[in-house]
Amino acid sequence: MEVYLDNSATTKCSRAAAEKMAQLLTEDFGNPSSLHTMGVKAEGCIKEAREIIAKTLKADAKEIIFTSGGTESNNLAIFGSAEANKRAGKRIITTAIEHASVLQPMKHLEEMGYEVVYLPVDHDGIVLSEALEAALNEETILVSVMHVNNEIGALEPVGEIAGLIKRKAPGALFHVDAIQSYGKFVIHPGKLGIDMLSVSGHKIHGPKGSGFLYVKDKTKIKPILFGGGQQKGMRSGTENVPAIAGLGVAAKEAYDNIASNTEHMRKLKEYFISKATEIEGVAVNGKTGEDSAPHIVSLSVSDVKSEVFLHSLEEMGVYISAGSACSSNKAAVSSTLQGIGLNPNLIDSTVRFSFSKNTTMEELDYTLSCMREIIPFRRKFTRK
Amino acid sequence: MEVYLDNSATTKCSRAAAEKMAQLLTEDFGNPSSLHTMGVKAEGCIKEAREIIAKTLKADAKEIIFTSGGTESNNLAIFGSAEANKRAGKRIITTAIEHASVLQPMKHLEEMGYEVVYLPVDHDGIVLSEALEAALNEETILVSVMHVNNEIGALEPVGEIAGLIKRKAPGALFHVDAIQSYGKFVIHPGKLGIDMLSVSGHKIHGPKGSGFLYVKDKTKIKPILFGGGQQKGMRSGTENVPAIAGLGVAAKEAYDNIASNTEHMRKLKEYFISKATEIEGVAVNGKTGEDSAPHIVSLSVSDVKSEVFLHSLEEMGVYISAGSACSSNKAAVSSTLQGIGLNPNLIDSTVRFSFSKNTTMEELDYTLSCMREIIPFRRKFTRK
Repeated sequence: MEVYLDNSATTKCSRAAAEKMAQLLTEDFGNPSSLHTMGVKAEGCIKEAREIIAKTLKADAKEIIFTSGGTESNNLAIFGSAEANKRAGKRIITTAIEHASVLQPMKHLEEMGYEVVYLPVDHDGIVLSEALEAALNEETILVSVMHVNNEIGALEPVGEIAGLIKRKAPGALFHVDAIQSYGKFVIHPGKLGIDMLSVSGHKIHGPKGSGFLYVKDKTKIKPILFGGGQQKGMRSGTENVPAIAGLGVAAKEAYDNIASNTEHMRKLKEYFISKATEIEGVAVNGKTGEDSAPHIVSLSVSDVKSEVFLHSLEEMGVYISAGSACSSNKAAVSSTLQGIGLNPNLIDSTVRFSFSKNTTMEELDYTLSCMREIIPFRRKFTRK
Repeated sequence: MEVYLDNSATTKCSRAAAEKMAQLLTEDFGNPSSLHTMGVKAEGCIKEAREIIAKTLKADAKEIIFTSGGTESNNLAIFGSAEANKRAGKRIITTAIEHASVLQPMKHLEEMGYEVVYLPVDHDGIVLSEALEAALNEETILVSVMHVNNEIGALEPVGEIAGLIKRKAPGALFHVDAIQSYGKFVIHPGKLGIDMLSVSGHKIHGPKGSGFLYVKDKTKIKPILFGGGQQKGMRSGTENVPAIAGLGVAAKEAYDNIASNTEHMRKLKEYFISKATEIEGVAVNGKTGEDSAPHIVSLSVSDVKSEVFLHSLEEMGVYISAGSACSSNKAAVSSTLQGIGLNPNLIDSTVRFSFSKNTTMEELDYTLSCMREIIPFRRKFTRK
């Protein structure tokens, strides 16, 4: 049996999205900037995808900027708003457990003279609102907080954070990295008070190389890539029509049955955690119920190195992740696991299981049976 | 009959490239950063594409950085090298007829305090080497010249330019935008003295959203997108494996039969120009023989507005471009046509026909017959 439980790293592209792409690669392949019918048709595909996506967020189509993926979306939000608002202040607030595509731009901004505050989180990975309140001041131009943490599935209270920003630093923009939450949660940025929201296509059964940044109308932001002026100058470069259309299909599929899909994953998560934690040495990190992401389970297995565990499971056909797979620096210590104050001995023994709407109970039963075999054996071996 | 003669705007993705993409979207869809087999397999696909591409340039695999397309490649080359070398000097040299994805980053660098020199070109669009020689000094950190101009097909003497740079400003880096020439010409950047070379996938029957920047080993350049540290930190973000692999397939197809394909397009071009210029009012812009791009023909049709001509051809199933389709600002005046000193009355009457290796003589005969019908009629109408 093959069981793919690494859906937070990447997902299988849906058949409908892939078929749409194939059609736009080899049949209706025009350049949207071309004046003839083929260009007009390509432009229409982009418009359609933009409208589908805007609808999922209750946003306006003009508030969606297509990018090459989550990393570019986060970079555009952070660099683009920092540059556009630098005269208003140089203070930026984020958290200690953001994804590298937020943390690394922040480090770069620090080198450029910005002041970046990294908020601490509690043992469940939830941002401490007192810390945020204390950090917010009138110099603050940007607050960037992820919606769902990619390693432990912590769900940040973005609505509450938006309220705090509005009270304490009404001039600051609020960016939310929703790469792990879009398609799992209904998010209405306009209502919540979110100014920018990053999404990646390949996390929601869309194509790799696709993504978007929601930017609330009239938000001050500058582009980071310059050229032909596509997308009203906010993202130059021939639009990746096949990927954009594929993303539109995937977004529609994700939101058409979001309640039942999320409910399905929640049940899987509850079941999986209840059975997995029966195994000696296994502990779960972060919250596990309705106030957590439905598709991410972080487990620490004492006395079993995560790489050893991962490869043992792999031999039995089960694919999981050691920490986060979004970083190519495979040996880097997870800032999230450090951030929640996990016992240093356990950081190296932590793995992530991540589900999709297509994950089945049978797959989890098989995975659990593998775990019941591997864990006692490996622990005995280690403790000798 | 439908005839697509807008291949410099975008090309039809090859069947083999599209099939490779479909497989990597829906079957071998792993994240290259994942530690398990599916990640390793995805990483292998990237390695394979990198090696194919490196071979076409007689370069090392490690000298290839995959990007989201030509615009990102040009932005990375220009911003990345300007930032990395700013302490050595602030002078940059380019030409007046570069693509917007070079010219706009240059404008941005000027705002940041760099000094940018825009070299003039002759009536055929060829850079004036005396002007380059005069502009080069020890403050110069970067020279960026396109290999083939996208509007008139002018072929710039990049080898000669590299020699001049080496003599007059040995510390300067040489970037070549090869987006319109890769796949049409054999280019060995190492031998030619080129430090960086930009390529786009969708111009060579590869996927949109794919491209690469060749960066000579040990060249000082910084990334422009930050995150998980993929591609040795030079381009963060989950690699777009399907697009990268599709680009590899397209690159191989382009270079496997490059001599015969280029010869084929050259013959088409010669034939097309000889017949088209027999029509009253039609003149060709730029050089037309071996020292020009084989696939681009720029024609000015006196007393016929390019948009009118384009739409008349479109009604008969022939798709061409009014100037360059790479810009979304459809009303912008072409800097290339201004640069070559074209009569202002003709700038609005200039169209581009661009061929691919799949273009046939029959398609051109049909196109010519349409032109013989449209042009006299439209000219008569205009001149009344």
